[in-house]
Amino acid sequence: MVRRTRRATIYDVAEAAGVSKSLVSLVLRDSPHVSEARRTAVLEAIERLDYRPSQAAAALAGGSSRTVGVVIDDYTNLWFVELLRGLQDGLTSAGLRIAVSDRTLNSHIESDPLDGFLSTRVEALVLATEPTASMRIPPNMPVVVAGNRETEIPGADLAASDDRLGGRLATEHLIGLGHRHIAHVAGGGGASAQRLDGYLGAMRDAGLAPVVVTPSRATTEETGYAGTMTLLEAHPGTTAVFASNDSMAMGALAAARDRGLEVPADLSVIGYDASPLAATHLMQLTTIDSLNREIGAEVATALLSRLTEPGREPVATRLIPQLVERSTTAAPRRRL
Amino acid sequence: MVRRTRRATIYDVAEAAGVSKSLVSLVLRDSPHVSEARRTAVLEAIERLDYRPSQAAAALAGGSSRTVGVVIDDYTNLWFVELLRGLQDGLTSAGLRIAVSDRTLNSHIESDPLDGFLSTRVEALVLATEPTASMRIPPNMPVVVAGNRETEIPGADLAASDDRLGGRLATEHLIGLGHRHIAHVAGGGGASAQRLDGYLGAMRDAGLAPVVVTPSRATTEETGYAGTMTLLEAHPGTTAVFASNDSMAMGALAAARDRGLEVPADLSVIGYDASPLAATHLMQLTTIDSLNREIGAEVATALLSRLTEPGREPVATRLIPQLVERSTTAAPRRRL
Repeated sequence: MVRRTRRATIYDVAEAAGVSKSLVSLVLRDSPHVSEARRTAVLEAIERLDYRPSQAAAALAGGSSRTVGVVIDDYTNLWFVELLRGLQDGLTSAGLRIAVSDRTLNSHIESDPLDGFLSTRVEALVLATEPTASMRIPPNMPVVVAGNRETEIPGADLAASDDRLGGRLATEHLIGLGHRHIAHVAGGGGASAQRLDGYLGAMRDAGLAPVVVTPSRATTEETGYAGTMTLLEAHPGTTAVFASNDSMAMGALAAARDRGLEVPADLSVIGYDASPLAATHLMQLTTIDSLNREIGAEVATALLSRLTEPGREPVATRLIPQLVERSTTAAPRRRL
Repeated sequence: MVRRTRRATIYDVAEAAGVSKSLVSLVLRDSPHVSEARRTAVLEAIERLDYRPSQAAAALAGGSSRTVGVVIDDYTNLWFVELLRGLQDGLTSAGLRIAVSDRTLNSHIESDPLDGFLSTRVEALVLATEPTASMRIPPNMPVVVAGNRETEIPGADLAASDDRLGGRLATEHLIGLGHRHIAHVAGGGGASAQRLDGYLGAMRDAGLAPVVVTPSRATTEETGYAGTMTLLEAHPGTTAVFASNDSMAMGALAAARDRGLEVPADLSVIGYDASPLAATHLMQLTTIDSLNREIGAEVATALLSRLTEPGREPVATRLIPQLVERSTTAAPRRRL
């Protein structure tokens, strides 16, 4: 659960420092007409209360940044590209634009990845990453969570696709091709957990024995490679791998090659996300389209309605994912 | 050449609308104590002068966003990831963070991709993209250009690697392996132009005939695929391809496979950028390391010194790129 905390105002700073609001303004403007003692008191109060002057600036000018901040997990996982496209398309009519922050990139500068956006006065936040307890979201900031997450944010809207259904679709595609030895390479996070659930449900319904490897919470090419290598070592009879996302599937393709297996004849591989990577000529990856562009459009719709009607109840939208068949899945080669 | 234009101030708006500065403030604060006629006059002046109230807000509060805006070309080309890491590392000590805008993503909302950052009051700009004439950069905004570009921005610092030398390194690597039929798949932009130059120089010095295909200004997997297919059709004797970046090299690998050529035995492929893609298990791409992380560090150094000393002369830093040998290049197979 993520706590929303009220941001300190210029009045809080004035009260804490025992000075007037005008004097706080003078300090903020770096005016020479302030004694050192009072300047020190004000600066200490600012630090203690974590007061961010730009928010006061916004209030003063009544201006608007017309910018929506989007926090993503990892630039190298391209699933977010279509999300941003859909989001930008949906926000254009309202004259809003987006700025993106990569959470892993900014993680060592401070505990709260939102700080940068908040001090630059974004009008709303889109979290395309797992929320954490360290995120301090101002009470009146419109927030939409994109994708299924482990943690809920009170008052936030959600736009995602049904990852449980998608995990089932991926598995049933492989079962339908005739595979019986289907393994899942899983990762961490809310979306991965639901995809795993979908896999387990489909395997159970087909009377097949599930094999799951979870090399790490990370869902990268590296973990996909490591997980598939482990899997093929322990279960050499595996004929199909469902990887939790396209980056991991890229690693699974490399593992198959390094084990001397031909894809799809010896090993079928299916990913998830329909990221730009999956569509490359090199990969031509069968995957599940989580409709990220449409999720982006839903996020935009939720944001615009939230900006118009701040008090409305939060809504959760879940889209129906779709199978995209490309070249990495086929019927298993008949064993002699 | 990119013009820097002075931003309109609240005083310009007041003068243009024939009202006082205080009345402009009232309109900005959406005060009810303004007649409709005067409100209309002020709003028209704001639009005509392209006045951005948040800059006034910043001036009013003396606050600081502590954020550097980075404009990149295309999220799907991962060359910028290491640049951002180096930049973030270098800015951490100064308590600065980064926000990223993708230029193609925001291109349909407005002509100036910087608008979003300027209205959110970033403290400095990093352009990791070709500057265009439509970019209106405020006169006092610190700007560092990352990477070699076609257009110069007056007063901006530059941090790049020597792409001409890198193009030469790539070509000489292939020549050193024994290749004589080495083609280059080129793209548009300042970096690509220099890489092409380096290729041409190395081929000339070795007495070899250059073969260049330029499928498009775009430098994507798709154009790399298309260019390499065209090349292998027209010049089936080609034994090595130097692609202008790693995305294009990914397309070249796919084209080789689709033409039934084994990499590296039948066709060597070298990319450029040492992007995260090149290091994947699936690609294991030989490439030229343009030292993007170090460029990011140089960008940070230039920004911090520019913020300390706004009046200093602009500096250009060019780093020496390095060959990264992986699995996609080898001596040509002996023709019988």
